[in-house]
Amino acid sequence: MIQTPYLLFLGDAPDQLAAKVAQGIRDWRPDNALGQFRLPGCGADVGLPDMTLEEAKAAGVKTLVIGVANRGGVISHGWKTVLIDALQMGFDLASGLHNLLRDEADLVAVAEANGRALHDVRVPEVEYPIANGKKRSGKRVLAVGTDCSVGKMYTALALDKSMRERGLKSTFRATGQTGILITGDGVPLDAVIADFMAGSVEYLTPDNDDDHWDIIEGQGSLFHVSFSGVTMALIHGGQPDALILSHEPTRATMRGLPDYTLPSLEALRDMALPLAHVANPDCKIIGISINTQHLGEDEAMAYLAQTEERMGLPTIDPFRQGASRLAEALEAM
Amino acid sequence: MIQTPYLLFLGDAPDQLAAKVAQGIRDWRPDNALGQFRLPGCGADVGLPDMTLEEAKAAGVKTLVIGVANRGGVISHGWKTVLIDALQMGFDLASGLHNLLRDEADLVAVAEANGRALHDVRVPEVEYPIANGKKRSGKRVLAVGTDCSVGKMYTALALDKSMRERGLKSTFRATGQTGILITGDGVPLDAVIADFMAGSVEYLTPDNDDDHWDIIEGQGSLFHVSFSGVTMALIHGGQPDALILSHEPTRATMRGLPDYTLPSLEALRDMALPLAHVANPDCKIIGISINTQHLGEDEAMAYLAQTEERMGLPTIDPFRQGASRLAEALEAM
Repeated sequence: MIQTPYLLFLGDAPDQLAAKVAQGIRDWRPDNALGQFRLPGCGADVGLPDMTLEEAKAAGVKTLVIGVANRGGVISHGWKTVLIDALQMGFDLASGLHNLLRDEADLVAVAEANGRALHDVRVPEVEYPIANGKKRSGKRVLAVGTDCSVGKMYTALALDKSMRERGLKSTFRATGQTGILITGDGVPLDAVIADFMAGSVEYLTPDNDDDHWDIIEGQGSLFHVSFSGVTMALIHGGQPDALILSHEPTRATMRGLPDYTLPSLEALRDMALPLAHVANPDCKIIGISINTQHLGEDEAMAYLAQTEERMGLPTIDPFRQGASRLAEALEAM
Repeated sequence: MIQTPYLLFLGDAPDQLAAKVAQGIRDWRPDNALGQFRLPGCGADVGLPDMTLEEAKAAGVKTLVIGVANRGGVISHGWKTVLIDALQMGFDLASGLHNLLRDEADLVAVAEANGRALHDVRVPEVEYPIANGKKRSGKRVLAVGTDCSVGKMYTALALDKSMRERGLKSTFRATGQTGILITGDGVPLDAVIADFMAGSVEYLTPDNDDDHWDIIEGQGSLFHVSFSGVTMALIHGGQPDALILSHEPTRATMRGLPDYTLPSLEALRDMALPLAHVANPDCKIIGISINTQHLGEDEAMAYLAQTEERMGLPTIDPFRQGASRLAEALEAM
């Protein structure tokens, strides 16, 4: 569990896209971040006050979060100076970088000397159990996609927001590094050892109030041969009461698999639901989330309407419209 | 890759069951094992000549394989003495024990001093790639089960034997510790990190002759919520041309999951085949393997005949009958 509030380290990010983790925190958990820290030449700005480490300390910040991708997979000298200063001033560090903070001997030494934590959210910090499949109290919803990277995390975060706005009990449960940094907690599922995948999802979504919903962040796709095992573990470990189908309608082939085309929403429905019924015979598909970012407004609206008509399910783009219709569907269950 | 031939270490195994790994090596790869090594009080005997380490050395043995489960999860003093002697005499060690050889400081020191290898087959020794899903040459068959531990490894080993007896090109591809010790090679799939599961299966079953069959050892079950992700990775990483359905007809509930009943063979067929078609649209189910060990001979034969009639597929118990009818089905493809 990463301590909040954060100071978001944007470093020398060349552009806004490089700071998308910081932007995600700013968009979805604005209360978690009090300021941003930028180095000379930084081309990103997530719209938070620029703070020095001293100012952040005075404001009550607990953790410096690296909210930016680094170049060439090395932590530069310029970054290192700030990170070491931060540890010495009593901040924890959190990072989703591919190269781990814990592999940097100087950071480890300073962190230990100052009793600070280094959170590498790419790697598990917990020994997860083997899944036991026992029915848990509370309710759970999971987005499953026709492909990877079709907007499952965005859908889950938007749905969580809509649920809270309606006064419903809801928790976004992160299963990837960006989601973990946004909320400060979660399971880095793609880094979990095979035997413990489903167990880690059970651990992430324990017994809860009967009217509470866990909004589980989806990963991979049943149709993506590289990562389908991870998706399977989410469906069986999460024992969802509700599924949402996610799709990106302009993509020609599966992400990273040029020989594979995307399945239809019908094929996804017919594959996912029987698998979900193994863990939860009452599971239902309650809606469809479409990522229409590559369509114009008219085209997008027409696609959503046609899909809703064809599939007989509430169909939305959470970026254009929010997820209130999906929250409505969950509330009705 | 573990160097053969082996000397099988039976230690102080209380009974034959405790030595089942050694028995598996003796049954399936008799050429791999030249002798057995037993301590005083050993209650197991796999029918190989008893050898001292000196005799084994003279006979050309390369590796001492721990073919027995240990008690209480510790490597006892009595064992340790033999293992250290073996390393000093130039043998490698191989083990599927839960507690790892590499975690025993004294073994590591002696192995390093003598340039010997410690093979812990429970943990991967390779950095596997992410699966790319590219169509590979050669053919592959995989057994999928209604549950875990219904005889998938036995089926694969028996099928590999039948294939070779017919003069066909065949390789058993181990995905679990017992299989790896039997053949000296394989992927410990349940210990692979989630993102690399399917890639490890691709690595295990590379391009091959067009008329060569990889007989892939199955794991878990699509219907076993603890381990279904591992099964999924085998189906998509293995891109099988043929599936075999495996079942144990007397089991009331899923292994380790008292709240879950077993699916029917029809349900397994209808779930597994569409998933297999994602990676290989030509995949077919070619037969059924039943573990009838808890049925009498007449009952077993009746069950096999009824199942064959009902499912319309060659149905055998490989322990009672061998797997020649499955090999025949593969040859016909």
